[in-house]
Amino acid sequence: MALLVHKYGGTSVGTVERIHRVADRVAKAKGEGHDVVVVLSAMSGETDRLIRLAREVTAHPDERELDVLLSTGERVTIALLAMELQGRGINARSFTGRQVGIMTDSSHTKARITRVTAERIKEAIAEGVIPIVAGFQGINARSDVTTLGRGGSDLTAVALAGALKADRCIIFTDVDGVYTADPNVVPAARRLDRVSYEEMLELASLGAKVLQSRSVEFAAKFNVPVEVQSSFIEGKGTLVTREDEDMERVMVSGVSGDRHQAKLTIVGVPDRPGIAAKIFGPVAQANIVVDMIIQNVSQGSLTDISFTVPRADLAKAVDLVQRIAKEIDAKSVAVTEAMAKVSLVGVGMRSHSGVAAKMFEVLSREGINIMMISTSEIKISCVVEEKYMELAMRALHSAFGLDAARVGA
Amino acid sequence: MALLVHKYGGTSVGTVERIHRVADRVAKAKGEGHDVVVVLSAMSGETDRLIRLAREVTAHPDERELDVLLSTGERVTIALLAMELQGRGINARSFTGRQVGIMTDSSHTKARITRVTAERIKEAIAEGVIPIVAGFQGINARSDVTTLGRGGSDLTAVALAGALKADRCIIFTDVDGVYTADPNVVPAARRLDRVSYEEMLELASLGAKVLQSRSVEFAAKFNVPVEVQSSFIEGKGTLVTREDEDMERVMVSGVSGDRHQAKLTIVGVPDRPGIAAKIFGPVAQANIVVDMIIQNVSQGSLTDISFTVPRADLAKAVDLVQRIAKEIDAKSVAVTEAMAKVSLVGVGMRSHSGVAAKMFEVLSREGINIMMISTSEIKISCVVEEKYMELAMRALHSAFGLDAARVGA
Repeated sequence: MALLVHKYGGTSVGTVERIHRVADRVAKAKGEGHDVVVVLSAMSGETDRLIRLAREVTAHPDERELDVLLSTGERVTIALLAMELQGRGINARSFTGRQVGIMTDSSHTKARITRVTAERIKEAIAEGVIPIVAGFQGINARSDVTTLGRGGSDLTAVALAGALKADRCIIFTDVDGVYTADPNVVPAARRLDRVSYEEMLELASLGAKVLQSRSVEFAAKFNVPVEVQSSFIEGKGTLVTREDEDMERVMVSGVSGDRHQAKLTIVGVPDRPGIAAKIFGPVAQANIVVDMIIQNVSQGSLTDISFTVPRADLAKAVDLVQRIAKEIDAKSVAVTEAMAKVSLVGVGMRSHSGVAAKMFEVLSREGINIMMISTSEIKISCVVEEKYMELAMRALHSAFGLDAARVGA
Repeated sequence: MALLVHKYGGTSVGTVERIHRVADRVAKAKGEGHDVVVVLSAMSGETDRLIRLAREVTAHPDERELDVLLSTGERVTIALLAMELQGRGINARSFTGRQVGIMTDSSHTKARITRVTAERIKEAIAEGVIPIVAGFQGINARSDVTTLGRGGSDLTAVALAGALKADRCIIFTDVDGVYTADPNVVPAARRLDRVSYEEMLELASLGAKVLQSRSVEFAAKFNVPVEVQSSFIEGKGTLVTREDEDMERVMVSGVSGDRHQAKLTIVGVPDRPGIAAKIFGPVAQANIVVDMIIQNVSQGSLTDISFTVPRADLAKAVDLVQRIAKEIDAKSVAVTEAMAKVSLVGVGMRSHSGVAAKMFEVLSREGINIMMISTSEIKISCVVEEKYMELAMRALHSAFGLDAARVGA
């Protein structure tokens, strides 16, 4: 007898047939004696269809109106699932973001949740009714509809689970959990049974697409256990939860790779106070996100400064940095395009000092040159030539004992 | 400088191209110095698409959920039109039924408006913003979405015009006004410049599809002048308004015909008190709407009772009435299927006593037998054989001076 929040994404409710299957799962959980609250996305493709319609009407649609438009998608799915369950004799009722009391600020199309009241949801649960909630949407103080941006329905589910003090928030999606590495790159990757909020945050910021950082932050803040499960295959998923003692036995939980990196080096920079601000101030103003920065030890009065940027921003960055280099009397700008970042993530690093050393040793053994290094409490990232990224990931995955046991091995 | 409510139906907002044209019209009215409030329907076909989706999910969709589903259609169009106007630099903002304060009872899918607050609309107008309002929807006391049933968007427009004390409510539709008769039947039919609420009500109840009775009743109650105009052709429409002196000069405003009638006669009914209730009680309980009833003068202790029903209900009615006839010891039941009702409508009848006599004379001159007659203050209806319906309509239209002046005549 637990209180569960189920969240189903766009592909899980993409057709009437799939809505039937969602109803099966919800009915099963209810039949097992649990209280269930369901959060839904729009049918996959619907949000894109609506955005296309808006762009046909006008090139730059007003964001308040875009939210009125986009928030219709989830209203369709919640009504359909509620009907379906009622058609089976199961008491269910749909609720919009407003009716749930998802209060947000007024940043239309990317609003932040400020408060969740959930009064009507509590009432419905008390009456034995299954609430079917529209994800991705809330209202601002003026009672205008807002939407929460990418991953918004996950956020609705986690926030609602927090407000209801739910026992678990289960995110049903098209993957069956969080993996030790991308299985496309590392065939020996395996699904993690558990991962901590902090590790999940690092993995999300490194590009893992399973859960967005915002949802994980929310879950951590309100201590909501989040489980990622496949909506198509029955079985265990990955539980994202508070760090526990079990976890500390593992040094490394996952290996990630990000190939969309490029490196810029400003050569011969006069080494005087304030020079870093002169460089990175204008770069930040141009909305270019700088990831790692390295400044070589100065030789005499000159130094070299290297940093990485997303490859998509490279052209813009090169133009800008060349102008800056001139202004500060640096010698030249060097560009290395094909770079990748390989990272290890694990809360165990806190208590194991040898992780970085072992990582460098593994890469060196494979003949991979490390060009930049950055570390945090639970993450170590190395920038390497892109062509070595996959090799580096597989070697690290194996060396840190993450490979799945092979059948018969 | 007037306050106008514009209402555009589904075909008027059926494509992005047509939404552009709606924006043209709204911009023009604004440019002429008027304050404009716009009420929209869903894109034509959208409501049907959503209903199909619901029926795919379950055979008998819950009506509360159906309202959540159906109310999304208008939200799409209001957002699109608001974007379009803003894209042109015109200040516009969308409002849902809830935001307008369209309060209704809880009869989902056919809710009745109980109150219209319109606070946010008044604010918007005061700020010079054009409010774009979702028609067809409101909320009940629990703040659940309701829909107003067929013609609901017209009703929203009229009710809002009433609450705002608007100078005029213009219903843009695919016809350009109210005609003296159906032009498909009476080629000489012409558009009326004006028609009174009462005449419009009679015409609506006789099957004129331009405005539904509910909207006309609302308009009459709050004295809202309603104009029916074509959304495709610029030009004058028909003004539905309070009776004025001009109108009384015309005896008859329109001729209508309803071919979906059938007549039932119970022959040899024992003439005793309470017999009518024994017959029409069960008929009403079976949801069969009886239009006209005639009871012949009794001959001895037996009488004949005839009445008309919609042809669609005939089979059901015959079964039922044959059972009733047995119970009350009547002799037999006679059925005449192909009947039609021809009606004259006009407030002028109040002060002209000769209308009925002239109608009978015209029909007699054409050799048309009148089978039943019913009259009200501003309407006379005759039931005739269906094959004579069109002839009867044309003859009456001409005899009462309604024919359009022919060019060159």
